[in-house]
Amino acid sequence: MADTPHRVIIIGGGFAGIRAAQNLHYVPVEITLIDKRNFHLFQPLLYQVATGGLSPANIAAPLRAVVRKQRNCKVVLGEVTGFDLPNKQVLMGEERLPFDSLIVAAGAGNFYFGHPEWEKHAPGLKSIEEATEIRARVLSAFEAAEHTPDPTHRDRLMTMVVVGGGPTGVEMVGSISELARHTLRNNFRTIDPAVTRIILIEGHDRVLPPFPEKLSAKALIVLRRMGVEVRTSSHVKDIQADHVMVERAGQIERIDTSTVIWAAGVRASPLGKLIADATGTTIDRGGRVVVGKDLSIPNHPHLFVVGDMAAATYPDGKPLPGVAPVAMQAGKYVANVIRHRVAGKPFTDPFHYWDKGNMATIGRNAAVVDIYFFRFSGWFAWMTWLFVHLMYLVAFQNRLLVLLQWFWNYVTRNRAARLITGEKGRFESLKMPVKPG
Amino acid sequence: MADTPHRVIIIGGGFAGIRAAQNLHYVPVEITLIDKRNFHLFQPLLYQVATGGLSPANIAAPLRAVVRKQRNCKVVLGEVTGFDLPNKQVLMGEERLPFDSLIVAAGAGNFYFGHPEWEKHAPGLKSIEEATEIRARVLSAFEAAEHTPDPTHRDRLMTMVVVGGGPTGVEMVGSISELARHTLRNNFRTIDPAVTRIILIEGHDRVLPPFPEKLSAKALIVLRRMGVEVRTSSHVKDIQADHVMVERAGQIERIDTSTVIWAAGVRASPLGKLIADATGTTIDRGGRVVVGKDLSIPNHPHLFVVGDMAAATYPDGKPLPGVAPVAMQAGKYVANVIRHRVAGKPFTDPFHYWDKGNMATIGRNAAVVDIYFFRFSGWFAWMTWLFVHLMYLVAFQNRLLVLLQWFWNYVTRNRAARLITGEKGRFESLKMPVKPG
Repeated sequence: MADTPHRVIIIGGGFAGIRAAQNLHYVPVEITLIDKRNFHLFQPLLYQVATGGLSPANIAAPLRAVVRKQRNCKVVLGEVTGFDLPNKQVLMGEERLPFDSLIVAAGAGNFYFGHPEWEKHAPGLKSIEEATEIRARVLSAFEAAEHTPDPTHRDRLMTMVVVGGGPTGVEMVGSISELARHTLRNNFRTIDPAVTRIILIEGHDRVLPPFPEKLSAKALIVLRRMGVEVRTSSHVKDIQADHVMVERAGQIERIDTSTVIWAAGVRASPLGKLIADATGTTIDRGGRVVVGKDLSIPNHPHLFVVGDMAAATYPDGKPLPGVAPVAMQAGKYVANVIRHRVAGKPFTDPFHYWDKGNMATIGRNAAVVDIYFFRFSGWFAWMTWLFVHLMYLVAFQNRLLVLLQWFWNYVTRNRAARLITGEKGRFESLKMPVKPG
Repeated sequence: MADTPHRVIIIGGGFAGIRAAQNLHYVPVEITLIDKRNFHLFQPLLYQVATGGLSPANIAAPLRAVVRKQRNCKVVLGEVTGFDLPNKQVLMGEERLPFDSLIVAAGAGNFYFGHPEWEKHAPGLKSIEEATEIRARVLSAFEAAEHTPDPTHRDRLMTMVVVGGGPTGVEMVGSISELARHTLRNNFRTIDPAVTRIILIEGHDRVLPPFPEKLSAKALIVLRRMGVEVRTSSHVKDIQADHVMVERAGQIERIDTSTVIWAAGVRASPLGKLIADATGTTIDRGGRVVVGKDLSIPNHPHLFVVGDMAAATYPDGKPLPGVAPVAMQAGKYVANVIRHRVAGKPFTDPFHYWDKGNMATIGRNAAVVDIYFFRFSGWFAWMTWLFVHLMYLVAFQNRLLVLLQWFWNYVTRNRAARLITGEKGRFESLKMPVKPG
């Protein structure tokens, strides 16, 4: 105990990484938390940023602030480029950081099903930059629609397509509907944003596939009431600057649109592949690393992979979903494993995900919740969704300000953060129809 | 009255433009408000965004939301490229917008005294993008200082230079000092941000040159107490990626720094030059258009230039300062001129700026205020500054949320919006010293 303390490196300051670090607070270890960004991001609320309801800082907390009082944890800003596992080192360019235990929790990015060229036309909801880019695109489309004299082009601008009918996609269309049909009321003089076509495309035969069928049906009813066109069993075949091709039961439909948002596929960080190559373990189709029952890599008891990067399973072998509760519990579990090891105590309990259920919001007053035996929807579900999401915001200030901002948005139907920022040129490029060819 | 209404075009949704539009609400005119951006920006608080105290949306209000209920006003997003004054038209690329009265209020940008090459090393405080860029630079410098093993490079990273000792520069150094000496406490493990060198460079012989000498002296005392090195009668001779050259009384000093912020020179929008060329009027050294006593261009009674673009004067010929109160009063005044003309009533009162005084904040509890016969500093001045700035935020929601955010920041000394966003690579480029050559 008197010599050098056990060194823990955590890669990624998301839900899993933060939880692991926090649960090692009073353990005699030396933690290095590495992240590419200087903040923890509450990804489940990125869609609020993308539609002007919240500001980026409302859903982000500086990592250094999060672990400020945890003297055994230092934060390193930077990108991990590889591993030297025989020497127990993490590589960051020419730097080498030694570890005794390594927790890899670098999360997942968007995956375009083998069509990386779709990305530029259909940003996803994974980073603050993507969210503000989507915000700029949605708002610029309305601006260009107000401006154009061409009715065909106007219809195209006023058609928004969201690909993916999981919780993120459903929240996104609900939010766009609220923006178009309420927030922007009286904002324009030529167009009426309320007539905006909002289309949700889902490959399964129902929205919110991880939910019980009854709740999917409820969600569908609410979405239709909000004026969202839902296309289930539909697959995107192509995405271009001015249209999307969708296939359903062998039929191809062309949807003219200038705004496409990707909420369909995700793929684990490329670090997963590096680990698989170095350890001989396998990765699944989503790039996730197959881990053992204690979330470590077989034959590498000191190397853990958690969160969206891990292909962990329920006891029956069913894969665990890539959601925040799994990541948080996994982070906590691994911290516990390390705590026992450092103390020289045996610990053989496998990781057990305590599934508290699922929830998704659809819009004002509407959500679906599936917790234990409780499955409900409507206003009370919405309040539950709100409460739970507030509670998991890491910084207390954010909880307070988000609550107030939401209360304000709820009462006024306003979304004050609808700023077009960042790169210039989006609006200019939307003003005229794309020339064919 | 029955035929086409009088058409007013307002270029620029800043303080002057917004006030002009609002004061024409109940006048039978048709207003077109043109802006490059979709929001009104409260520029006096940009330094708060640059230091992580506020989010961009806190100090911006979507233009369409501002004039939402004003049915005689439409908003056009776009950039004015020229004027066809004989035909009374504003040009936006190939588009032509006809007007009966034109109010040009396009504001001012940074001016680097003939050294545009300094801009990339020393962003100014004029746009949200610049403010978030400064935020990223300041925070990345601390990150790189925590990381580097080279003590010389560390010192360079922990030296921040603000050029310009007017209200913006003073507010900026005060805010950086607060960030370094309080907010970031316990955030780092290798460096102590409290020892950051903060240097303010001012060409005049005192800070806050527009204020009475006594208040400048007070401000200097406060700045010194906050650990800011103030260099008066000093002129910047060169700005590079890793140093600044400053001249004082013939002596040249080299300051090693990787973070320089420009708060010195501004120059009116290039539209001023276009107007001068088209009308034969003159522009001053700051690119501002010389206007008549009613803020119109001589021989062009329907063409008004207001705000930071106008070289308007006090009755004694002294130039009016480029501050928000001048712009707001000018916007209101021109609306009044137009209202009289439309009603066919005579109106010959010249523009008279009602100078309510000046105020600047230096940091927590410290500000200087110069109102009428009242000149005071300290906590009460700070509260006055706070109250006045809150009152002039256009959107009510912003007033409420900024008040709360400030209250929170005040109590906790926290600045939650300290996110490094936008372009990647700043931190990477700061990690190693710049190679000479």
